[in-house]
Amino acid sequence: MDGFDFDVKRIETGNALIGQSGGPTAAINATLSGVIKGLRRSDNVKKIYGARNGIDGVIGKTLVDLGDRIRSDEDYYLLECTPAAALGSCRHKLPLLDDTKFYEGVFEVFSEYDIRYFFYIGGNDSMDTVDKLSKYAEKTGYPIHIIGVPKTIDNDLEGTDHTPGFGSAAKYVAATVEEIARDCSVYTVKAVTIVEIMGRDAGWLTAAAGLPGLCGQACPDLIYLPEAVFDYEEFITSVETLLKHKPNIVIAVSEGIRDADGKYIGEGSQSGAVDIFGHKYLAGAARVLEAYIREKIGCKVRAVELSLPQRCAGHCLSKTDIEESVLIGAQAAVFALEGKTGCFAVFKRLDGEDYSVEIGCVPVCEVANKIKKVDRRLINEAGNNVTDELLRIILPLVQGRVDYPEVNGLPEHFVI
Amino acid sequence: MDGFDFDVKRIETGNALIGQSGGPTAAINATLSGVIKGLRRSDNVKKIYGARNGIDGVIGKTLVDLGDRIRSDEDYYLLECTPAAALGSCRHKLPLLDDTKFYEGVFEVFSEYDIRYFFYIGGNDSMDTVDKLSKYAEKTGYPIHIIGVPKTIDNDLEGTDHTPGFGSAAKYVAATVEEIARDCSVYTVKAVTIVEIMGRDAGWLTAAAGLPGLCGQACPDLIYLPEAVFDYEEFITSVETLLKHKPNIVIAVSEGIRDADGKYIGEGSQSGAVDIFGHKYLAGAARVLEAYIREKIGCKVRAVELSLPQRCAGHCLSKTDIEESVLIGAQAAVFALEGKTGCFAVFKRLDGEDYSVEIGCVPVCEVANKIKKVDRRLINEAGNNVTDELLRIILPLVQGRVDYPEVNGLPEHFVI
Repeated sequence: MDGFDFDVKRIETGNALIGQSGGPTAAINATLSGVIKGLRRSDNVKKIYGARNGIDGVIGKTLVDLGDRIRSDEDYYLLECTPAAALGSCRHKLPLLDDTKFYEGVFEVFSEYDIRYFFYIGGNDSMDTVDKLSKYAEKTGYPIHIIGVPKTIDNDLEGTDHTPGFGSAAKYVAATVEEIARDCSVYTVKAVTIVEIMGRDAGWLTAAAGLPGLCGQACPDLIYLPEAVFDYEEFITSVETLLKHKPNIVIAVSEGIRDADGKYIGEGSQSGAVDIFGHKYLAGAARVLEAYIREKIGCKVRAVELSLPQRCAGHCLSKTDIEESVLIGAQAAVFALEGKTGCFAVFKRLDGEDYSVEIGCVPVCEVANKIKKVDRRLINEAGNNVTDELLRIILPLVQGRVDYPEVNGLPEHFVI
Repeated sequence: MDGFDFDVKRIETGNALIGQSGGPTAAINATLSGVIKGLRRSDNVKKIYGARNGIDGVIGKTLVDLGDRIRSDEDYYLLECTPAAALGSCRHKLPLLDDTKFYEGVFEVFSEYDIRYFFYIGGNDSMDTVDKLSKYAEKTGYPIHIIGVPKTIDNDLEGTDHTPGFGSAAKYVAATVEEIARDCSVYTVKAVTIVEIMGRDAGWLTAAAGLPGLCGQACPDLIYLPEAVFDYEEFITSVETLLKHKPNIVIAVSEGIRDADGKYIGEGSQSGAVDIFGHKYLAGAARVLEAYIREKIGCKVRAVELSLPQRCAGHCLSKTDIEESVLIGAQAAVFALEGKTGCFAVFKRLDGEDYSVEIGCVPVCEVANKIKKVDRRLINEAGNNVTDELLRIILPLVQGRVDYPEVNGLPEHFVI
């Protein structure tokens, strides 16, 4: 996937380093590919390194020469279709800037490898890393261009219209919930199926479960996002009312739904769920609601957690998402080559009848550690479904399928 | 999907009726399409009805004229790509044959609609229905040809090399577990992920989780099938040994694994799992083992139930499975038109280097209510993984992808 054509005006000679951080997505390697493609536009970028396990790989000097690993068009394509961070990932919150010893260690590695360009592909926390590293560079005068590139299935980053990885996750969630709704419709016995979807703080991905309805296909009867207060009474009344008219109810809930006191429905301390050793544990929201319906209504009820496949289903990629993910990586490289630093590459949705985006950049300090939630206006008044307006915002992001490579009938993955 | 060319020798004039029964699969509608295609080869089959919700629809006379609903090549193709029984399903164990009132009721409907051909697409229990109905017809001399057509993701039917629907479920399971293994590999923190796969009595589908390993891709470290006795000590020793050499372990377990006493690992009465109201409930095998590892090893551990998508993932169909599912339906129609009854259509795998099958039929009484398990020889000695021999039996069934129709980026389903 290509299609970008950038004019690189300013070039500084040196090496580049790329890291991936936070939870995996199905598109994070497409962005990695894009950054490499963008950097290769410039003859003055000598070596392109990858850091294994994000910032941990910088500190531990587990760098890999990506020039050795990614050589052909087939390599790029396979990398772009491979889910989960090919360089490995980490969850590492950097210390405050006055912990100079830590930062000196990082920049010694930058210096040793002559790193003049550093790219970090990640979410909220990773942008905090970009912010701190670029501030430290500015403070010390170390000549480096540091750019953050977004990635998260949660779609909850500020400053960007949407995030790479969200479109593929949304396509997977929408298709899977549509199929579950179809599956559940075959029996005449009264039954409730509750599907739990990722997104602890923002309901974008859960909202995607409603997309099939916009396309005339089977979809959930009720959808609960974290942005609307969850009310047990409204819930049970809605389910009972629906069961009067149809035998099979499908409900999509975000893992992060909360009651009026802000307590997570799926929180162990509230739910009192106990494992086989009598230990309390974090039962998911769907499982808590499953037990609640069994108690209150007594009908057949089943909790389904979509779980990890939401963030790594490389067999169900959105072409729009993967192409955009490559593009934003490539443009991030160009931003760095043009001399920008401390920046975050973002999508801007353009006005017009047809969906289109352009890629811009904003200071990373404006977006780090912030969460972009779904506007309450985009949820219905009762708080138990999403509006068509919200679905129409998401729909363009799931368009198109990717013809991913297979080996013997199974997805082939690129291993760095 | 087509490609069959049958010579229909004997024709009896009348109408045909098709029902679907048991748990949904992603291929059960491909078989429905095949039966209709096969029947349409004969001018003497007048109307083709579908019974809504299997035998319940016969009793309740909720029949639908499929000639009205399925008209164009596009209709057939869309039906073949649509998961879950388009006619609806039921779970209805027929009474003993001496309950003549029940059978008289069924055959009155057959008579009223001039049904001379009856097809039932289903699993073990559904073949019991075929067996009883054909015995009753024989006893009473009612002129009807009754054929059972296999369907189940569990692949556990006797008399057939494999079952329609298994190949697509196996492809989905293999691809998804491969992606989960890739996802889990990105972190360096010690962690165990346990993936629970359907198949209460037979481990065929769980075995498919090992396919990516045969193709050089990421795959589970341990695989437990119901056919080998599950031993907690072996389990924890294997996990501890593996964790010494690699940080991330992925384990595939069948929902039906049992201990030496034959007790299900995932059985509520053993596990002692309690829901938020203090009620015991059926915790899945993966969840029980998750708690067990947390207790014994104390590392990060996560249970993932693949749940309903295994049997309805129309977005991840095996082309081989869907084509064969159409073909066996069409051949079942031909068997009936040739005058066979009380039969079950089966796949016979032909000898030779390349995979190929032919379709035969066996008396349904020989297969009804029986379960075909995985031969213990096809599991490794320790009982914690599958052999390559087993994987090579399954591999041909997941070959090829289906270009399913989309509407606005999401799967389009056929609704009858």
